Amino acid sequence: MSDIPRAVIFHEEGPREGLQIEKQIFPLSERIELVNALGETGLSQIQVGSFVNPKAVPSMADIDQLFAGITPRKDVRYTALWLNEAGFRRAMSTQNVDISAFLMLYTTDALSQRNNNCSVANMQQRQRQWVQLYQDAGKPIESAYIVTAFGCNLQGEVPLSVMMDSVRFIVDLSLEHGFPLPRIMLADTVGWANPEEIKRRVGAVREAYPEAKLGLHLHDTRGIGAANFFAALQMGVDLFDSSVAGLGGCPFANHANSHGAGNICTEDMVFMCEEMGISTGVDLDRLIEAALLAERMFGRSLTGKLMHAGRPKRAPLRSAMQQTSLN
Amino acid sequence: MSDIPRAVIFHEEGPREGLQIEKQIFPLSERIELVNALGETGLSQIQVGSFVNPKAVPSMADIDQLFAGITPRKDVRYTALWLNEAGFRRAMSTQNVDISAFLMLYTTDALSQRNNNCSVANMQQRQRQWVQLYQDAGKPIESAYIVTAFGCNLQGEVPLSVMMDSVRFIVDLSLEHGFPLPRIMLADTVGWANPEEIKRRVGAVREAYPEAKLGLHLHDTRGIGAANFFAALQMGVDLFDSSVAGLGGCPFANHANSHGAGNICTEDMVFMCEEMGISTGVDLDRLIEAALLAERMFGRSLTGKLMHAGRPKRAPLRSAMQQTSLN
Repeated sequence: MSDIPRAVIFHEEGPREGLQIEKQIFPLSERIELVNALGETGLSQIQVGSFVNPKAVPSMADIDQLFAGITPRKDVRYTALWLNEAGFRRAMSTQNVDISAFLMLYTTDALSQRNNNCSVANMQQRQRQWVQLYQDAGKPIESAYIVTAFGCNLQGEVPLSVMMDSVRFIVDLSLEHGFPLPRIMLADTVGWANPEEIKRRVGAVREAYPEAKLGLHLHDTRGIGAANFFAALQMGVDLFDSSVAGLGGCPFANHANSHGAGNICTEDMVFMCEEMGISTGVDLDRLIEAALLAERMFGRSLTGKLMHAGRPKRAPLRSAMQQTSLN
Repeated sequence: MSDIPRAVIFHEEGPREGLQIEKQIFPLSERIELVNALGETGLSQIQVGSFVNPKAVPSMADIDQLFAGITPRKDVRYTALWLNEAGFRRAMSTQNVDISAFLMLYTTDALSQRNNNCSVANMQQRQRQWVQLYQDAGKPIESAYIVTAFGCNLQGEVPLSVMMDSVRFIVDLSLEHGFPLPRIMLADTVGWANPEEIKRRVGAVREAYPEAKLGLHLHDTRGIGAANFFAALQMGVDLFDSSVAGLGGCPFANHANSHGAGNICTEDMVFMCEEMGISTGVDLDRLIEAALLAERMFGRSLTGKLMHAGRPKRAPLRSAMQQTSLN
């Protein structure tokens, strides 16, 4: 228990994760409003969207306009995702984008083919080019994602040894190219992790590379994301990707094998932290407002819970008597 | 970690928790079908409903017909809730009811008044009558619930000392009346618990009464129920109340302070256990079927996640390629 960090950082993924999966394209003004609302919550990093093929992801076609439209705060980083050099170059030339350079490794050929049209090994080779690209641009490499680090819906089990191959590749690459080891982000992309496996895999990286900084990108695909988050806290992990209102899944089409569900919900996890005395730097009331804004925008009930239940009222509320239950 | 139990028992609360909160009264045949489906999952105990004032809870008015209509399995206990002697007597005289006698303590006057029209102290006194009632009926007292053991939406904070007063009352009552100490059920009725507080309060009971059996009745009101569940597992707790599909909350009216949200979701928690090698005796595929049946019955998307995402497919699925994500 003593490993639980005193402070936790959340990287907000809602605008990207939530919108990339939607067929509906929301008005630009609403997307700008959501990003701006998130910018006022104390979150230090917000992933606004992806510079990807607009044919594959139509909702990201006007990503440059979205970035141009926001009112950036100086203390907030507005980041973006890209999957190739062209995407990176677009991001570099777009107003208000805070280039948070990252590497991306896959554990299964199936998902790598699906997302990048190349094998795991090819994607590794591409990372050498990405490193060169980042170094030429003078951008420090901040993080390295290991996608489907816990399991893959397309290919099945991802053994720990396969995940560790990706970790080792990142370490070797940093030595080879002489850049500081980026934060290793283990992504439970499609919700295969469980609390014990979180502990086992985080522990394995720690044991092999004690100097490595670690973060987790968690999804609540199967209802145990909050438990996985707590298990990671117990291992001392202090950085998480998450999505406001639990964005990233669609309640109208999320039946078995249709697609993955949303990230762990930022405000619910911030709530857990704050209740346990872990500081997050986030104004929870403002974050709940942003979640409710997202819900109005999406026009349907989103999966976040705190936004619906409200925060516990600690002061006596005898006169209010609004809430009860038979058991 | 070594305290994690090898086996966990789930007491299914969905039919009671899910239906008592609904304004809609579902056809009797559908409710019977749901209970019967749950009876085929391997769950050992299912709370079918409440013998309470039909004016206060119209959905439970025909509870005797519901019990009469089910097809009971011999290895399943079909239990009921009551709030007073009249309810207990109705339960006793109803077909198929497995009388699992319980005590009920409150930690706040506000909720006790709301649910029972009496103070915490009065409710304690009533428990003496309940004990007599159970003893006269020859029914062993199996459990003792401490309602809002972690906090109360009506009255606010519930200090640990107040919760422990209830525990002590139960212990004293068992000594006074000469019955074995029932399993003490700490109920997070309205979702105030967090993982550290689970550990603190379970630990406090354990320290004061090492011989006491403990169980938890958890709600996922604020999105951290799965983490609370995992924290309890780490403390060796091996019995939980839960609801299929996460029943107990209404997504159409669950805005702040309207009412509490559902229990932790049975199939999601069974999934967590099974993934971690903890046996539950539950056939997860059948339980998911029951959850989907509940969803069809309720006619809206319920909060359970596994039922929508499906179980991880461990075997290679290259030909299927149904599921992916950009990250």
